[in-house]
Amino acid sequence: MNHRPRLSHATRPATVEVHSSNERGEHLVTPIAGEYPLTIYLDKRELVTLMTLGQHPEALAIGYLRNQRLVASLNEIESVQVDWEVDSCAISTVAGIAGLESKLAKRTVTTGCGQGTVFGNLMDEIDSIRLPADRTLDETTYYRLMDNVRRYDSVYKTAGAVHGCALAKDDEILMFVEDVGRHNAVDAIAGQMWLDDIDGADKIFYTTGRLTSEMVIKCAQMGIPFLVSRSGLTHMGHEIARRVGITMIGRATGKHYLLFTGGQRFVRAAAASPASA
Amino acid sequence: MNHRPRLSHATRPATVEVHSSNERGEHLVTPIAGEYPLTIYLDKRELVTLMTLGQHPEALAIGYLRNQRLVASLNEIESVQVDWEVDSCAISTVAGIAGLESKLAKRTVTTGCGQGTVFGNLMDEIDSIRLPADRTLDETTYYRLMDNVRRYDSVYKTAGAVHGCALAKDDEILMFVEDVGRHNAVDAIAGQMWLDDIDGADKIFYTTGRLTSEMVIKCAQMGIPFLVSRSGLTHMGHEIARRVGITMIGRATGKHYLLFTGGQRFVRAAAASPASA
Repeated sequence: MNHRPRLSHATRPATVEVHSSNERGEHLVTPIAGEYPLTIYLDKRELVTLMTLGQHPEALAIGYLRNQRLVASLNEIESVQVDWEVDSCAISTVAGIAGLESKLAKRTVTTGCGQGTVFGNLMDEIDSIRLPADRTLDETTYYRLMDNVRRYDSVYKTAGAVHGCALAKDDEILMFVEDVGRHNAVDAIAGQMWLDDIDGADKIFYTTGRLTSEMVIKCAQMGIPFLVSRSGLTHMGHEIARRVGITMIGRATGKHYLLFTGGQRFVRAAAASPASA
Repeated sequence: MNHRPRLSHATRPATVEVHSSNERGEHLVTPIAGEYPLTIYLDKRELVTLMTLGQHPEALAIGYLRNQRLVASLNEIESVQVDWEVDSCAISTVAGIAGLESKLAKRTVTTGCGQGTVFGNLMDEIDSIRLPADRTLDETTYYRLMDNVRRYDSVYKTAGAVHGCALAKDDEILMFVEDVGRHNAVDAIAGQMWLDDIDGADKIFYTTGRLTSEMVIKCAQMGIPFLVSRSGLTHMGHEIARRVGITMIGRATGKHYLLFTGGQRFVRAAAASPASA
């Protein structure tokens, strides 16, 4: 039985309505995405303030600790309590975090639209990542998944200004998380994967966001061999995807896509043999 | 005469070409955006690693210091030297930064797809910001500017995966900066505004990125009364725009736009009087 920390279940309204006027001078009531600061305290030590849509704050906090490599397993976490009265998330660990101060002292703030903070360390780590070589994704399943993603009822459709991430098995969406930042969405999925004891080896990760270095690293760290984005990619994102051998598809819109790396896992409908890329 | 630090002029290739294959199994050579780590050292003290497109690294580093409130004026900066051999930018100050360690100790890493790091402090600051009330932007000029932005020859058109920011006076684009992250692009413009001794009071700031809290705060801090985005906005972005009285236009595409705040500065072509929003 998977250990489960004591969790609050605190969410914020995903959208709020504001007044605007358009180019015809018409007054409109426009739904916009929520954005709330959530300050994370780890054993009473202030760690970070995340600007979030606030839909999955507990999973987000756990995933942040996971992806920042501050905790190695869910078993280390005793409780995650979000209190929107004070915009804070109090995380208590079972036995404290060994060398927390030195871990935090070492952190480097990185950007490229990412939370970063441990990018340097992550780069050292990626060469040790091994993704399953035997998994495949066939084009027909891929298209069915893209269709499910497209039909998913999202905050983005209503209000825009958010990024979405989905964790899928074949064409089934297991989780769909949206947030103000790409990295919050992927962190929330990482946290929920721990909570639900879900392994990444047979999963597909979809994001509306760009495939920058940090995005590819996080996906690889979750052990997910397939990474699909509606958007483009950067050179470093491509380099890292090549190095870890992730199957990466970009510009996934409608019937179009570009397969950039790891083509041996992608089986085209027409082809009998895996695609080359 | 404006003080100008000694600057390197180091840039990286904006795009690189990689191989991909599309849904028809055709092999393509695809240009993608560069992404390079740039570690900033302030008086030999490691500060941050920015993931950047590398087009304006010196202005980016200066703008980062400015927007992080680590330096109050360009006069404090003696030299900015970027060396891509070691992916580093060495900044030396004239007389050191008073209380640098305490400033850095206080910093909170924030996200929402932003560099953040000083968000908490910024929030305290915004109430002291006063934007010029007498400036106006008329709709015809606005449309001409949007047309100039649309026609601008950008990395985005070639490779995608970057955000663009423009600083404009009336319909004239004074600067156009693209980068991997929204915040790098706005920081690079903030740095270049210092280098060229440009005041924000009669300027318009355009961004392809979403209008989140940090984006609106940075624009207000640069003293720019007009903020225009192709994308949407968040609730906190809207709240801050309202509080500082910035004229904010979102969803600016083609002939369409939504005016959200500060309508008194925006004069519609049809109307004799300012718009209401």
